[in-house]
Amino acid sequence: MPQLNETHDPKLKSWVASANASGTDFPVQNLPYGIFRKRGSNEAPRAGVAIGDQILDVSAAAAHLNGAAADAAALCGAPVLNDFMAAGSEAWSALRKGLSELLREGGPADALSGALTAQSDAEMFVPANIGDFTDFWANLNHASNAGAINRPDNPLLPNYKWIPVAYHSRSSSFTVSGVPVKRPKGQLKPPTAEVPELKPCGRLDYELEIGIYLGPGNELGSAIAIDDAEDHVFGCCVLNDWSARDIQAWEYVPLGPFHGKNYGTTISPWIVTMEALAPFRTAALKRPDDDPKPLPYLSSKSNEENGGLDIQMEVLVSSQKMRDDGVPPALLGASKFKDMYWTVAQMITHHAVGGCNFRPGDVCGSGTISGETPDSYGSLLELSWAATRPFNLPSGEERTFLADGDEVIMRGYCQAEGAARIGFGDCSAVILPADK
Amino acid sequence: MPQLNETHDPKLKSWVASANASGTDFPVQNLPYGIFRKRGSNEAPRAGVAIGDQILDVSAAAAHLNGAAADAAALCGAPVLNDFMAAGSEAWSALRKGLSELLREGGPADALSGALTAQSDAEMFVPANIGDFTDFWANLNHASNAGAINRPDNPLLPNYKWIPVAYHSRSSSFTVSGVPVKRPKGQLKPPTAEVPELKPCGRLDYELEIGIYLGPGNELGSAIAIDDAEDHVFGCCVLNDWSARDIQAWEYVPLGPFHGKNYGTTISPWIVTMEALAPFRTAALKRPDDDPKPLPYLSSKSNEENGGLDIQMEVLVSSQKMRDDGVPPALLGASKFKDMYWTVAQMITHHAVGGCNFRPGDVCGSGTISGETPDSYGSLLELSWAATRPFNLPSGEERTFLADGDEVIMRGYCQAEGAARIGFGDCSAVILPADK
Repeated sequence: MPQLNETHDPKLKSWVASANASGTDFPVQNLPYGIFRKRGSNEAPRAGVAIGDQILDVSAAAAHLNGAAADAAALCGAPVLNDFMAAGSEAWSALRKGLSELLREGGPADALSGALTAQSDAEMFVPANIGDFTDFWANLNHASNAGAINRPDNPLLPNYKWIPVAYHSRSSSFTVSGVPVKRPKGQLKPPTAEVPELKPCGRLDYELEIGIYLGPGNELGSAIAIDDAEDHVFGCCVLNDWSARDIQAWEYVPLGPFHGKNYGTTISPWIVTMEALAPFRTAALKRPDDDPKPLPYLSSKSNEENGGLDIQMEVLVSSQKMRDDGVPPALLGASKFKDMYWTVAQMITHHAVGGCNFRPGDVCGSGTISGETPDSYGSLLELSWAATRPFNLPSGEERTFLADGDEVIMRGYCQAEGAARIGFGDCSAVILPADK
Repeated sequence: MPQLNETHDPKLKSWVASANASGTDFPVQNLPYGIFRKRGSNEAPRAGVAIGDQILDVSAAAAHLNGAAADAAALCGAPVLNDFMAAGSEAWSALRKGLSELLREGGPADALSGALTAQSDAEMFVPANIGDFTDFWANLNHASNAGAINRPDNPLLPNYKWIPVAYHSRSSSFTVSGVPVKRPKGQLKPPTAEVPELKPCGRLDYELEIGIYLGPGNELGSAIAIDDAEDHVFGCCVLNDWSARDIQAWEYVPLGPFHGKNYGTTISPWIVTMEALAPFRTAALKRPDDDPKPLPYLSSKSNEENGGLDIQMEVLVSSQKMRDDGVPPALLGASKFKDMYWTVAQMITHHAVGGCNFRPGDVCGSGTISGETPDSYGSLLELSWAATRPFNLPSGEERTFLADGDEVIMRGYCQAEGAARIGFGDCSAVILPADK
């Protein structure tokens, strides 16, 4: 687990003025990685770090780095971060230190200002070749709510408090923030219908999640001890696990969600490294005394004391009318990643316990992050309680699930006493109508 | 759908004598693709076609090809077939014709004999970068049997006859025939146990399947019409979807199989192209009159008349003792791919109906291929009826599920009046004990 060091010092300022602005997601203490190029150019996509409202081209900065930092920067010229992710925590830490020194006040501003691209001028890409995407379901509030809606007589299944439950999902359909998502079609069979029909999804939903990028993998057939788990984690993004509730309801028994999930997953373009998150470590969620203790392979003192991450999550929605009228997006849910029932380390360790191998760039979704009250729900399934509790947007438009033209904006940020606030940038997408 | 042409002529012989042997899987009418190198060498893995007991190096043969065949062969020097898969059916067909002409009697035997490697001297690789692996469940006999075992009061779920049910599975853990598979550990909670324990799987099973390799993909958000579906299919292999039944039983509700499946999938090294399979087309399974007709997007005259593939499937098991004593493997199940409830085209079309994108090299498993009688079951779950019907191997050893040291061998082959018999080669693996 990365330790606090001088790159986290909240007093550090950058020569990139926007990085010192109050409320920026990207101060010099953050330095998240993404893949970018100048919009409209034919440049090769390559790695950058976000700094204020700018992006520093890591390859271009490499000439100013030495030793392990320069070696690590040499892995950042590719159009995906997989090789850098595979390099492991010493390489990541060396490059972070190097980039932090370059971007601080007193760094080589003149030499590097040509290596900056404004984020507003950049096109961002899915930052890794994502070999496999696993989606967990590690939030007890969401699991309990979804269970109460779908199985009123049997809301929380007996395995939930023993297993960090997950399903395999689809890696081909990842898109980066800003790319619209088309409403899927699928077989729908409402309980009242005799037979299913192929129709556009009528219950399109978001799920507010953290995405966890794997760094070095494990060999097929080898497990990962819980205290080694985070050595395999490169960093986190914000992830919207779009969900077609009506398609899912008809298809998902007995083999799990398929078309309900596989038409798109939207991610924030920036990956905040585990080292950048070090100031925001917290204890794992304290389980009620009645709950079972995790099995030994999922337990450790370190995980219990520091396995949590205090990330504030938000989901906002803006309808086409709201955007036309200049009404700001409506905050529909605000929740905390530290309230997950299972920690990142428990998810990673459980994932590998049977010998399944991770590869660098694989992504694990956390599952919907919901709190205990409706203003903290991370999905419309919960907020509208499966369409039984319609609500109004600030425009007066009624919603249960998403309408065409709605934009869903997800955000994550961290703040703590004695640390600089850092954020993840937006994870947003507009819903396009289904094909005729 | 590829048509019969002169490459299918059963009278064709090859100058590679072993390709003319009765019972060979690889006559000149087959020409399946794999990725190989000479065993123990540092050669770059590259594409070859199986011919008799030899492999022809496609790149080395390229100098003898012209036009579209030469262009296609130029895609075969890579260590994976993805670029060739992406090239589409005209390229595939051109190369097949070219290689068929080169390998026939009268072809340039002297010039090409140096481009042959004996299969016994070759190391084979997973032949594609498999972006995503989807496993279907498209055999009604298997679904009914598994349902009767797991849900006696509710064996076949209401969606089964409407949806070609599938789940996302794991692409990282594919291995090629010959690579051993380690028995996984996982959480087990037999019905009689109060709490789960982490233990080695006690109900390790195989599933006899066909693997379908995708050729050209579809754009995210676009569907695939049923009569276009096979334009997206490169070819088929034999696939063993290893299944840890006891791990799966505790974990799989509500999000589907995860650790029950993700520690390994074994494939035959050879991909038999859809064009090679053209002589073995058959009608789709005739549904009983009481069954629903497939929805319009899953129906077409062409699919009904020619959507089936008459592939004979076999699964054999050999224990360590049998191998030590020179006892041949025991045939435990023989079934027919033409008995699938859903066709390949229906699986592909359904997969894309919500806009989920395929990429070249993606794999879809068919689901376990079982017939109606125990000698045609494609899994031990069915054959031992969840361990309630133990059986003996020829060595006298009793089995319900797999023991350490057991080798599972799967085979597929096609024969039809007026066509040369073709086969898939072996898909085999030995079970290693779980880690201590």
